[in-house]
Amino acid sequence: MDTRTPSTTHLTDEQRVDWLRLIRSDNVGPRTFRSLINHFGSARTALRRLPDLARRGGAARPGRICSEEDARAELMASKKLGVSLVAPDEAGYPPRLAVLDDAPPLLGVRGAPDVLMRPVIAIVGSRNASGAGLKFAGTLARDLGEAGFVIASGLARGIDQAAHRASIGSGTVAVLAGGHDKVYPPEHEDLLAAMLEAGGAAISEMPLGHVPRARDFPRRNRLISGAALGVIVVEAAHRSGSLITARIAAEQGREVFAVPGSPLDQRAAGTNDLIKQGATLTTEASDVINAVTPIMERPVAFAAREGDSEPLDFDAGATERKGIIDLLGPTPISLDDLIRMSDTSPAIVRSVLLELELAGRLERHGGGLVSLI
Amino acid sequence: MDTRTPSTTHLTDEQRVDWLRLIRSDNVGPRTFRSLINHFGSARTALRRLPDLARRGGAARPGRICSEEDARAELMASKKLGVSLVAPDEAGYPPRLAVLDDAPPLLGVRGAPDVLMRPVIAIVGSRNASGAGLKFAGTLARDLGEAGFVIASGLARGIDQAAHRASIGSGTVAVLAGGHDKVYPPEHEDLLAAMLEAGGAAISEMPLGHVPRARDFPRRNRLISGAALGVIVVEAAHRSGSLITARIAAEQGREVFAVPGSPLDQRAAGTNDLIKQGATLTTEASDVINAVTPIMERPVAFAAREGDSEPLDFDAGATERKGIIDLLGPTPISLDDLIRMSDTSPAIVRSVLLELELAGRLERHGGGLVSLI
Repeated sequence: MDTRTPSTTHLTDEQRVDWLRLIRSDNVGPRTFRSLINHFGSARTALRRLPDLARRGGAARPGRICSEEDARAELMASKKLGVSLVAPDEAGYPPRLAVLDDAPPLLGVRGAPDVLMRPVIAIVGSRNASGAGLKFAGTLARDLGEAGFVIASGLARGIDQAAHRASIGSGTVAVLAGGHDKVYPPEHEDLLAAMLEAGGAAISEMPLGHVPRARDFPRRNRLISGAALGVIVVEAAHRSGSLITARIAAEQGREVFAVPGSPLDQRAAGTNDLIKQGATLTTEASDVINAVTPIMERPVAFAAREGDSEPLDFDAGATERKGIIDLLGPTPISLDDLIRMSDTSPAIVRSVLLELELAGRLERHGGGLVSLI
Repeated sequence: MDTRTPSTTHLTDEQRVDWLRLIRSDNVGPRTFRSLINHFGSARTALRRLPDLARRGGAARPGRICSEEDARAELMASKKLGVSLVAPDEAGYPPRLAVLDDAPPLLGVRGAPDVLMRPVIAIVGSRNASGAGLKFAGTLARDLGEAGFVIASGLARGIDQAAHRASIGSGTVAVLAGGHDKVYPPEHEDLLAAMLEAGGAAISEMPLGHVPRARDFPRRNRLISGAALGVIVVEAAHRSGSLITARIAAEQGREVFAVPGSPLDQRAAGTNDLIKQGATLTTEASDVINAVTPIMERPVAFAAREGDSEPLDFDAGATERKGIIDLLGPTPISLDDLIRMSDTSPAIVRSVLLELELAGRLERHGGGLVSLI
């Protein structure tokens, strides 16, 4: 159904070690990774330049660079657990996730890679769900599974669990906030084992041993929606985590579906709000299928980029660098405004920002905004 | 808030008797009434021509024409019950109802006419409502009442009753399917008395003594939505009467609001469907107020007419008449198609249809469609 051509690019074993070292180094996120690779041509060259760039960005002390030894150890331990670390365009990397601006350069994939190449629908909702909500999440997951869709969710209690359980037979994917060996919540290890046993999969961008913290969950949520054609929110109160997933999904250009509920039911307040804001009211699987079918017939498209693949130029003089840093502060400002207000080239501005980021001094926000930490 | 200019036209006592006779005569509905008045200049002249027109339409036997005596008796009995029979543009006739294509030529108004001149919101829903539905209907009615809106509904059990009760203090209107002396259901006579006592009103287009039959309720529903800026459907199963009201409301250009519910709740199936079809999802009064406020700021506009005020020409020859009747059958056909396919003028076609209608041989459907009975 997804008409993407089969994967052709492959990393060599050496490249995979270099890629893993670069993404596991301090202050290197997926976007910075891409900028560095694009500019320096390889992860190995970028790794060699990291200390110098961070120093120029004003790092108080040099950031930790992941050693070759640590990277090889992670690859070995991953292999032992049945986890492959795959790059965008390699088999097992969900095609729709691969084209995102902030796609993980290496994704830890455990289980059957095939399931990740099929069309995915995400189902999310409250941990503290009602009986009706749990039942309906199961019905949706079962019906969508029968229609050929893979169900992705976050392995949490409540709606996530109900959605995974009902789609074990048809294919389901757990998207983890921690390392593959730190399943959260721990009591769902059995559920995950049953999912994998039946041909499902689990994915994570985090290193083995990483215990998920609160801030890892919103970051993880972008992978749930990013891998999917659309996200169904089954039950969600005001200001709940599922609404963050819905917002990210909309920003990624994904379809957002919401299950309605009585205005007197607090657990439907968030989903009713989503519908008011334009989400598709969903009472049965066909509401979802009808909306995503036209999208599946189009080739997978690259999302709008935030310009981080644009050329870099690390030859900024001290005056230029100071001029740019002086324009920054704790209040987020857009990259476009910064380029307009500075007296230098866009490539210089982007490079100074990247140096600041590697020094741990810059924070990137949504919508191309940046601020000093 | 409604910025309509004060009423100026008034019927004389004699005119009111003639109007009542004409609308109470066999086969004369609101649209036919308008056509006849527009063509013949007065109800009195139209009454004189009725037998001849019906005969030309092929009536098997002459239809009953309401006598002057019967009309005077109805006016007298109405007065005794506190019911005024008012024409569009007279005080007490809801301004938004007055501009509809099929507005009753005389509306029986009981209670305070002022309340009918204020902005109205209709609240409808199942008779067999849930506790949550009843509670929420009351909350909406109370909040909208406090915001200055009059609440209209059908005096039925369930949602209607809850909406009326909660708006007794702020103003509420019962729209009846039978005559003012045949309140349905009879156990709501006390509720109606309390509404009238508190400055509310009841309206009906039916003669005194008319016991409502099943087919009178859909007809009545057009008055509920027609008098209102918008209609809120609180709980409704598939294929319920409230959905007919919602459909008519949309055809009349009224706003349609629907309260969502769980997909597992059969009583929310109809309202969820309405939202899928474009109704505004409603969880609080402000959803309604925000949508109708811009409409209230515009002057009351005439709805699209179906061409029945267009010129008539009763001089059809036998061949022309036969040609038009031959084009008709039990399958509905649009007036426009009929005019196009016939070899004669639009005024002749419309007149032949009106004759057939007066003879009881023509049925008019929505969307300008007609068929032979």
